Amino acid sequence: MLRLTPTNFQRVIQAESFEATYAGGEANVVCSLSMFGHDTKMLTKLPQNVLGDKVIRAMNSFGVDTKDIVRGKGRLGIYFLEQGHGVRNSDVTYDREYSAISMATLEDFDFDEILKDVKLVHLSGVTPALSKNLYEVSLELVKVAKSKGILVSYDSNYRSKLWTLEQARSFMLEVLPYVDIAFLGILDFINILEYQVSAEKNYEAKLTDLYRELFEKYPNLKYAASTKRAVNSVNNNSLQGYLFDGKILHSSRIHTFDILDRVGGGDSFTAGILHGVLKEMNTSLIAEFATCASALKHSIRGDINMVDLHQVHTLMDCGIENINR
Amino acid sequence: MLRLTPTNFQRVIQAESFEATYAGGEANVVCSLSMFGHDTKMLTKLPQNVLGDKVIRAMNSFGVDTKDIVRGKGRLGIYFLEQGHGVRNSDVTYDREYSAISMATLEDFDFDEILKDVKLVHLSGVTPALSKNLYEVSLELVKVAKSKGILVSYDSNYRSKLWTLEQARSFMLEVLPYVDIAFLGILDFINILEYQVSAEKNYEAKLTDLYRELFEKYPNLKYAASTKRAVNSVNNNSLQGYLFDGKILHSSRIHTFDILDRVGGGDSFTAGILHGVLKEMNTSLIAEFATCASALKHSIRGDINMVDLHQVHTLMDCGIENINR
Amino acid sequence: MLRLTPTNFQRVIQAESFEATYAGGEANVVCSLSMFGHDTKMLTKLPQNVLGDKVIRAMNSFGVDTKDIVRGKGRLGIYFLEQGHGVRNSDVTYDREYSAISMATLEDFDFDEILKDVKLVHLSGVTPALSKNLYEVSLELVKVAKSKGILVSYDSNYRSKLWTLEQARSFMLEVLPYVDIAFLGILDFINILEYQVSAEKNYEAKLTDLYRELFEKYPNLKYAASTKRAVNSVNNNSLQGYLFDGKILHSSRIHTFDILDRVGGGDSFTAGILHGVLKEMNTSLIAEFATCASALKHSIRGDINMVDLHQVHTLMDCGIENINR
Amino acid sequence: MLRLTPTNFQRVIQAESFEATYAGGEANVVCSLSMFGHDTKMLTKLPQNVLGDKVIRAMNSFGVDTKDIVRGKGRLGIYFLEQGHGVRNSDVTYDREYSAISMATLEDFDFDEILKDVKLVHLSGVTPALSKNLYEVSLELVKVAKSKGILVSYDSNYRSKLWTLEQARSFMLEVLPYVDIAFLGILDFINILEYQVSAEKNYEAKLTDLYRELFEKYPNLKYAASTKRAVNSVNNNSLQGYLFDGKILHSSRIHTFDILDRVGGGDSFTAGILHGVLKEMNTSLIAEFATCASALKHSIRGDINMVDLHQVHTLMDCGIENINR
Amino acid sequence: MLRLTPTNFQRVIQAESFEATYAGGEANVVCSLSMFGHDTKMLTKLPQNVLGDKVIRAMNSFGVDTKDIVRGKGRLGIYFLEQGHGVRNSDVTYDREYSAISMATLEDFDFDEILKDVKLVHLSGVTPALSKNLYEVSLELVKVAKSKGILVSYDSNYRSKLWTLEQARSFMLEVLPYVDIAFLGILDFINILEYQVSAEKNYEAKLTDLYRELFEKYPNLKYAASTKRAVNSVNNNSLQGYLFDGKILHSSRIHTFDILDRVGGGDSFTAGILHGVLKEMNTSLIAEFATCASALKHSIRGDINMVDLHQVHTLMDCGIENINR
Amino acid sequence: MLRLTPTNFQRVIQAESFEATYAGGEANVVCSLSMFGHDTKMLTKLPQNVLGDKVIRAMNSFGVDTKDIVRGKGRLGIYFLEQGHGVRNSDVTYDREYSAISMATLEDFDFDEILKDVKLVHLSGVTPALSKNLYEVSLELVKVAKSKGILVSYDSNYRSKLWTLEQARSFMLEVLPYVDIAFLGILDFINILEYQVSAEKNYEAKLTDLYRELFEKYPNLKYAASTKRAVNSVNNNSLQGYLFDGKILHSSRIHTFDILDRVGGGDSFTAGILHGVLKEMNTSLIAEFATCASALKHSIRGDINMVDLHQVHTLMDCGIENINR
Repeated sequence: MLRLTPTNFQRVIQAESFEATYAGGEANVVCSLSMFGHDTKMLTKLPQNVLGDKVIRAMNSFGVDTKDIVRGKGRLGIYFLEQGHGVRNSDVTYDREYSAISMATLEDFDFDEILKDVKLVHLSGVTPALSKNLYEVSLELVKVAKSKGILVSYDSNYRSKLWTLEQARSFMLEVLPYVDIAFLGILDFINILEYQVSAEKNYEAKLTDLYRELFEKYPNLKYAASTKRAVNSVNNNSLQGYLFDGKILHSSRIHTFDILDRVGGGDSFTAGILHGVLKEMNTSLIAEFATCASALKHSIRGDINMVDLHQVHTLMDCGIENINR
Repeated sequence: MLRLTPTNFQRVIQAESFEATYAGGEANVVCSLSMFGHDTKMLTKLPQNVLGDKVIRAMNSFGVDTKDIVRGKGRLGIYFLEQGHGVRNSDVTYDREYSAISMATLEDFDFDEILKDVKLVHLSGVTPALSKNLYEVSLELVKVAKSKGILVSYDSNYRSKLWTLEQARSFMLEVLPYVDIAFLGILDFINILEYQVSAEKNYEAKLTDLYRELFEKYPNLKYAASTKRAVNSVNNNSLQGYLFDGKILHSSRIHTFDILDRVGGGDSFTAGILHGVLKEMNTSLIAEFATCASALKHSIRGDINMVDLHQVHTLMDCGIENINR
Repeated sequence: MLRLTPTNFQRVIQAESFEATYAGGEANVVCSLSMFGHDTKMLTKLPQNVLGDKVIRAMNSFGVDTKDIVRGKGRLGIYFLEQGHGVRNSDVTYDREYSAISMATLEDFDFDEILKDVKLVHLSGVTPALSKNLYEVSLELVKVAKSKGILVSYDSNYRSKLWTLEQARSFMLEVLPYVDIAFLGILDFINILEYQVSAEKNYEAKLTDLYRELFEKYPNLKYAASTKRAVNSVNNNSLQGYLFDGKILHSSRIHTFDILDRVGGGDSFTAGILHGVLKEMNTSLIAEFATCASALKHSIRGDINMVDLHQVHTLMDCGIENINR
Repeated sequence: MLRLTPTNFQRVIQAESFEATYAGGEANVVCSLSMFGHDTKMLTKLPQNVLGDKVIRAMNSFGVDTKDIVRGKGRLGIYFLEQGHGVRNSDVTYDREYSAISMATLEDFDFDEILKDVKLVHLSGVTPALSKNLYEVSLELVKVAKSKGILVSYDSNYRSKLWTLEQARSFMLEVLPYVDIAFLGILDFINILEYQVSAEKNYEAKLTDLYRELFEKYPNLKYAASTKRAVNSVNNNSLQGYLFDGKILHSSRIHTFDILDRVGGGDSFTAGILHGVLKEMNTSLIAEFATCASALKHSIRGDINMVDLHQVHTLMDCGIENINR
Repeated sequence: MLRLTPTNFQRVIQAESFEATYAGGEANVVCSLSMFGHDTKMLTKLPQNVLGDKVIRAMNSFGVDTKDIVRGKGRLGIYFLEQGHGVRNSDVTYDREYSAISMATLEDFDFDEILKDVKLVHLSGVTPALSKNLYEVSLELVKVAKSKGILVSYDSNYRSKLWTLEQARSFMLEVLPYVDIAFLGILDFINILEYQVSAEKNYEAKLTDLYRELFEKYPNLKYAASTKRAVNSVNNNSLQGYLFDGKILHSSRIHTFDILDRVGGGDSFTAGILHGVLKEMNTSLIAEFATCASALKHSIRGDINMVDLHQVHTLMDCGIENINR
Repeated sequence: MLRLTPTNFQRVIQAESFEATYAGGEANVVCSLSMFGHDTKMLTKLPQNVLGDKVIRAMNSFGVDTKDIVRGKGRLGIYFLEQGHGVRNSDVTYDREYSAISMATLEDFDFDEILKDVKLVHLSGVTPALSKNLYEVSLELVKVAKSKGILVSYDSNYRSKLWTLEQARSFMLEVLPYVDIAFLGILDFINILEYQVSAEKNYEAKLTDLYRELFEKYPNLKYAASTKRAVNSVNNNSLQGYLFDGKILHSSRIHTFDILDRVGGGDSFTAGILHGVLKEMNTSLIAEFATCASALKHSIRGDINMVDLHQVHTLMDCGIENINR
């Protein structure tokens, strides 16, 4: 998607120009993984015009392999972001209908060829929500991946503007049997999966119960992860990350930070978890790594987490440095 | 429409930001007429979001009456403009499908109410080309206007990306009996109306013949006008304007000029003709006024001709001033 | 006035360019009321040059009726704003002498005509402070409005650079018998009206006493309002609003917020109160509405509060939203 | 003065920001002389605020001695420049009334002290035109300079917005007996000095006659100089410079150039002549040097000619270089 | 290299910011070939810091394979570009000493591995000029490439600031026996190779003679190419391209164009020739293609020719289009 | 040095442009003293190119005397600054090798001439760290100054990237016998001078002990000063300043502030101390003045503290003002 952001916290009705950045759920994860040194590949469908060309350039700049991206009819989805400040919330105006990706069909992709030498496939719940054919394409991708022994990662990422809870539930139930790493929060359990939550327990205990119940039902699951965010103010949030490995819920420290750009914070956490899993890091470190990565994202303009491993490790180790001049 | 232009002659694939301006065929004409001191009103349908709000603000800033603008579902049309330079042509990428205006229907407008105290209605051929319902709405508007004795102005403005020559011909034949002021060039006669042109005559003689033939067939016509453009280079053009009053073809001087922003040059000529007609200027002066207005537009950023009467008259009278400091 | 602001918190001595916005006490109130959906009209005198044209465009963009604005000799007032940061205060350099408005006289305005169909007139104390003739014009406006049964709103807005306390007192005593809604804070009572304040009582009790005393003297008064600001730091303030309805002092919640642009915060509160009064909102809600509006202003660039009703109501209802992506 | 220029050839009514540069007739000459390596000093009166501070910084950056600049009441003069393009002329809106300099009096300056070790004093006709006291101050400065054997340079620089032809004539007649180097064009002779011009002769012959006549009347004169400009288009001019040494009129080549910023072209020619005179260059070279300097100015943003000796000599010697990469 | 360009034709002494682009002789050729659809790979050495990272991102964005780029000690070369205008020449300030690439040695590269599946190697004369070790590395690269039957392209690109004519001659004589495609102009023949030129013949005849003589001496040569540039003004040049195929000198049309950014014009011609050769285009078309590509480059910001095949073919076919709106 | 900063908190790998400011340890101190009204002079060596010219312009703009600056071979040092935000640290990439200053030798400077009428010389430890010859030049400067009875100020400013602790110790021991005002913190005592610190005492007691010990060894010392910084977050720090006068350690209040630009905070403290000493302020006020100056610096873009005396005194007296509008 093309993101158009008025400069300097202006509202759209004030703006005489827009900053243009390019992003999207899976793209954010893939580019962040590239920043961490992984070989990555993007799968999508883009319009056959200069905007499609630009998205390819943007992904290429991270070193992402874009050779399997399909080009065709339709638009590039756009969203207009008014960045919040003080007591004014951020506001997003979507203009994503009739996008090329939403019109993609199974015929556009040769999964056998595409998935050669692939170790992990990541899917965001936004994609099946975009259209019926994408619902189908998404499921098929996951099934083919699974049949080849490829790790499957799924981020629920529920968007009420795109589909109903019923549709989300239907897809979730179809996809979960194929998933290795699931990104699901308490609200997903309550609203989409309709699980019961005991009111008496604290947040971590609730989450542990829910993950345990889920892992019993879907023994294919290896990891489940989510974050808890406290909105201290529009300009300052706190974040804690959780990773369940089937037995224990690992929690990160709580990070509190001023915000430069909040969009993409969730995708950065996802990329952090996947990095840790792929690198076979110590499980309790993975939660901390991913939360640090997400906290750092809030200091980066655009949706994509343009920080490298050194920066994440610096935050993990010692927090803010005291660089003087 | 929202126009997104990369800064400093960049291509879209280079751009990290876009200048945002708001425009459209009829809007350009209406705003230019406001700059010339006329009371004006805009009729369109806009999405119920901040982009629609912004268009209203933009029109309001010219003093255009926006109270009859309808709000509803659909997008705001967008186009991306790469400004040409040297031997590189300008390039436009349209993203205008599924716009709110293209989905407007007769039910959206109460023409009886809207046309109260209106002296002239202007319609661009882009509008009926956008959708079947707009084809219908456009015709109805023109008919109601005519029935109330309101002057009707129609600019052919053929766009091959929007409709076929057959569709354009069909509309042209339906609308012409109601038109007072027609903006038609030689190519419109040949391609849309399928008139024959004698190869031996010079440009002005050909045009005179065609207009004369047209006025015989449609005695309702009062004026027909068009321009001839010579592209000396991407950065420098020459322009001559013509106005036929039923008897004589009045020609302007030829104006040659460097170009800051070419888009909207035609609409500026249209507004210039309408200003002259409404002000009952001497007919031969109208062609010169409109061509000067259009020449000046090429020195103004954005689609809309933000020059005032003083600037047009200065160019008509004495050309470029010698302001020294 | 034209406000020239160096970009990115620079000082004027660093600046190579200025952001240009257009504003002024009454203009800020009028434009904010337009954002809230009211039909509004501006009364002022502007220079007959492009700067005057630009101010008209700026007001028009909000949908404000500018047809009664007078044009003539004199300058457009300018002020240069250095935005403070950290421990550095904001700094304003005024360049407003010899402005067209300061030279306006009674002959410039036909109040009978101008005030037709008007429901409320708002006047800021800055205006009579600008010149002797404006003192006269302001009083006459208020008297004619009153004679026609129009609501009169007056904001004390004392500026020591423009007039002495004696002059301000003189005007205040002359205007108060005609005022329905008065914007007066504790300092206005002490310094201008020379009321006594009992040191023992808390802020709200003092204010209640003062308003009660005032309303006894001027039974024409319907509402009095003011705010209390705590400057936590240059970048962060707290604000509480008060509205006295003749009987009770209604207080808003205390809002604490980071600041993007502080100028115009008072005018936004004023517009919020006037909106509530015109819409006949529940009195206790009006204080909250106005304070929320003012708090939101601090997140908007420029002097004018470009937020809409939805944004104010969101802040009234639930505070900062938790929009994640 | 502060010059405020909308970016990218916009009109003031379009502009959301202004480029800020600082300049003025004598300041432009003085700074250009500094770029050419001369020790220079500026004499003026500036307001006691950040704008005055900024002007001092701007002059200092060229190495100009600013210690004798007086600070006091009044404004900094401002002008708004719309840069022309294509067939649209440049347009200047002055806002220079009530400036600090216009209120300066003889008491502000101790000429004896100020003129110590000074070799040349330059005065522009704009200065005595600003106010009666400046008329007086200017004359006194010139007289004291002359009495100390300092070279006096005077540039007529007639501005019809500032004074009448009669006032300009009065000053010219008073100042000429003290002038060594006079910058006067044919129009100054005709309009201000009311000399007769023989219609039959060509431009250079006319100019020679006029200068000869003037030098006979004022034997104190050492040099007279002026330029002839042909406006090929708003974006392209041709320029020829003339220098009369009492005997011969030396002409430069004709330079034709595209224009980036035309303001200050005349002051750059003046500085070029003064440089040549101070460096005792070959007289015929001085005219070429000054015209090259002026031609180069048109390629520099802002009023001040920020080119160095190397660049002027390159243009004198060989024209445009063929730098390839 | 990092190119730092003051915005809007400013001089470095005026600039408060720089546009940053990344480029270099071979990089420009390689990126242009990527824009034309070729698989490309870059070979260089970059510093181990964020500037090196940024260069890799920039090359990646074109889809260039950057995996063989070596990282190590040293700087990233920088150059400051003042863009000329009117009669002011462009001016380049180099800051390229001690760059990482200039310190690269044979040990840094495993040519056997690097040249697998490579069809063509391109080398610019700037590279061996940077240091003794690069002289050595360059020769070795060419020899290994030749031994593997890979096409070798060499662009003389003489820079007097980097090495003497003797050093350039020495390298030229060593490298020519391995070259298939040589980019050499008349000045290279005269100054570096010390060939004699008959003064009587016209430009094309001279060039044909020189190329014929060269091809007799080096029968390995397949193509030689060069351009002739006429500097009409700093802002407008004319360009003609030549390609010699061993028998005939093919000439392009003469293209005249306004200039947005002249740097990289030569590299764009080189890329055009290589594209034609690799695509086995008709020889006479190759010269036209390459010259059109180079002409288009002058309309693109930055050193790299960001135009695609469609744009080059449009210029080859029909020149400037007449896109109206 | 030239500092290149990506705009809006971007990382270098994101940046398409850089803000350019010019600074350096001693330059920052000297310019800040100019802002406080002192006559100042800069001593350094700059490259003979436009970058050197620009540095001179930048220093001149503050009114600093630049006539003794030497020009010659070598580069201008550059550093790239990524401004930190939230939990992301600031990051500096130095590119300062082979600078003109690092190659300066004793022959470049005539200290006898340069130090005429000088009252105080300030040296930063960065300078002797740059090269062996600068080590020598620095020592000689200090010795000559001392021999002339000029006050000598030395700021340790240890940079581990430039020299080892041993080298720093060697210089410190050589220079201290000539120093009047020493800027040394606790870490300098421990790491460079290898003093012992008693772990039981609090910070101020430790510092007093260390300063006392130092003053006993070097009875030439008049003042020693340092600051303690608490990094509350990347965007918010607290600062306390200390000044030892041989007897008492004077402490400032603790100032806590949001940060716009942290670089140069230390140099601003130094300038504040030197101002107080030169103005013979009350000793306890000097510490407060310098700490206020440093706190204010964090609100100013660029390395140089562009605040004036009025702003420092405002912060000393009453903190943040309550300027409303």
